[in-house]
Amino acid sequence: MEGTLTILGSGSALPTFQNSPSGQIVTLCDKSFLIDCGEGIQLTMRQMGIKTARLYSIFISHLHGDHCFGLIGLISTLDMMGRTQPLHIYAHPDLEKLLRPWLDYHCKDLKYELIFHPLNPRKKEVVFEDRTITVETIPLKHKVPCCGFLFIEHHRRKNTETGELTYESRKRYAYCSDTMYKENIVPQIEGVDMLFHESTFIEEWASRCKATMHSTAKQAATIALKAKVGQLVIGHYSSRTDDHSRFLSEAQEVFENTILAVERESYPILCRESADSRPTGE
Amino acid sequence: MEGTLTILGSGSALPTFQNSPSGQIVTLCDKSFLIDCGEGIQLTMRQMGIKTARLYSIFISHLHGDHCFGLIGLISTLDMMGRTQPLHIYAHPDLEKLLRPWLDYHCKDLKYELIFHPLNPRKKEVVFEDRTITVETIPLKHKVPCCGFLFIEHHRRKNTETGELTYESRKRYAYCSDTMYKENIVPQIEGVDMLFHESTFIEEWASRCKATMHSTAKQAATIALKAKVGQLVIGHYSSRTDDHSRFLSEAQEVFENTILAVERESYPILCRESADSRPTGE
Repeated sequence: MEGTLTILGSGSALPTFQNSPSGQIVTLCDKSFLIDCGEGIQLTMRQMGIKTARLYSIFISHLHGDHCFGLIGLISTLDMMGRTQPLHIYAHPDLEKLLRPWLDYHCKDLKYELIFHPLNPRKKEVVFEDRTITVETIPLKHKVPCCGFLFIEHHRRKNTETGELTYESRKRYAYCSDTMYKENIVPQIEGVDMLFHESTFIEEWASRCKATMHSTAKQAATIALKAKVGQLVIGHYSSRTDDHSRFLSEAQEVFENTILAVERESYPILCRESADSRPTGE
Repeated sequence: MEGTLTILGSGSALPTFQNSPSGQIVTLCDKSFLIDCGEGIQLTMRQMGIKTARLYSIFISHLHGDHCFGLIGLISTLDMMGRTQPLHIYAHPDLEKLLRPWLDYHCKDLKYELIFHPLNPRKKEVVFEDRTITVETIPLKHKVPCCGFLFIEHHRRKNTETGELTYESRKRYAYCSDTMYKENIVPQIEGVDMLFHESTFIEEWASRCKATMHSTAKQAATIALKAKVGQLVIGHYSSRTDDHSRFLSEAQEVFENTILAVERESYPILCRESADSRPTGE
């Protein structure tokens, strides 16, 4: 089944000419999940003609503004567009406290149910599970509590002897942003088909990277290499430059099958087997 | 002295492929004022290379989301960009109450002073005055308390007999959004050099216009005609269409010197005298 990653915003805290704050849509098993929702995400979705009605739920990694300032506008727009299906938001519990006064003021007659699921970003846990998808949190290390998300697609399999239906994991996509280099995430994301790992900086800016608790392109690629992932996507670029070719070359020196997250582009999430057929730096 | 109007967002509540929520910059006497700040306004400013350091103060007409959801992101970005100069925000007093928890959470070490000036949108009053500019509120009629803003540029003049310096009003720019047709604003905005008046709808959608307390292009032009303004700029377009030529032709039938607000375009605010030299429908 088709799986795609659509990049809506791949900048970091400070927007630039080219990059907006974080947001991406993962589509697996015909369900679309929004990960992070910086300012402008709903505008980009509208400009790209993305069907917001198909939005299943929203996962927020942490509460820095560039990852959540766009939520209130999106919630309001979904209402104006006539949404009736409940919307699930998975985030640090402070998000609901912050949004509540705005919701009461601006969206008091919301025509759909908004369901907040508080996350504990410090703990690896399954936060969502249905017939075809499981989502686990990936504890990360950043200036504020932060977690990534591991999406695991399930595949129905019939045991020919017993006739029993079992689920077999198929595509896996991991999102790791924002975080400093954190090697102990490797076992959890080992062998995923696609890994998005933040690379706010390159090695030249390593001291700034450390101070802000972000990763360099080289560090992102090192995680990808150690975890033997199919493909690495890097993004969350610093505002220092709009030329991201140095991010790419730095990462590819360590892990060849790396691509740059480009806003308004979609990338197929290919099964590890097909990914393996391409040359990688592993 | 140069005066310009720069359109950042000219859509209405629901963003479209072409239009973002409200926001515009008025530059008079080398000072830049932001009027309204819907989601994405700071992103557009960054993309257009607008020097946010020159932003003097912000005027918010009312608290519908498409006029204020972009404020928290802008406030945060100005801080990251090293602003030290105080920022004045003129708005309904509820805005500060709503923003305060977000400011405490996301911008607790703001390196510049944020000064809220509560407005009473029901009352015409001078809310800002310095050596060269006066700003008055224009009470409007909308679903929530709402006011427009009248910017009056002053010009120093020396009385040759007494040697006394007096101020003479020069350029005047009026912003009227959001509002239903409200004829009693005419005396206050009479003869302004440029009027921005919302035209969310055209006459064909008059019933929807009435229900939502907005104006049609024809109504905006009627106000411009009665107030004998220099030039009319219409905007705040409904999401029903991205073709605004019908808005323009409907307005121009009543008031010829009408232009469409186009995002990322700047328009000179010309003195009434020069505006008069062009053919108008008056």
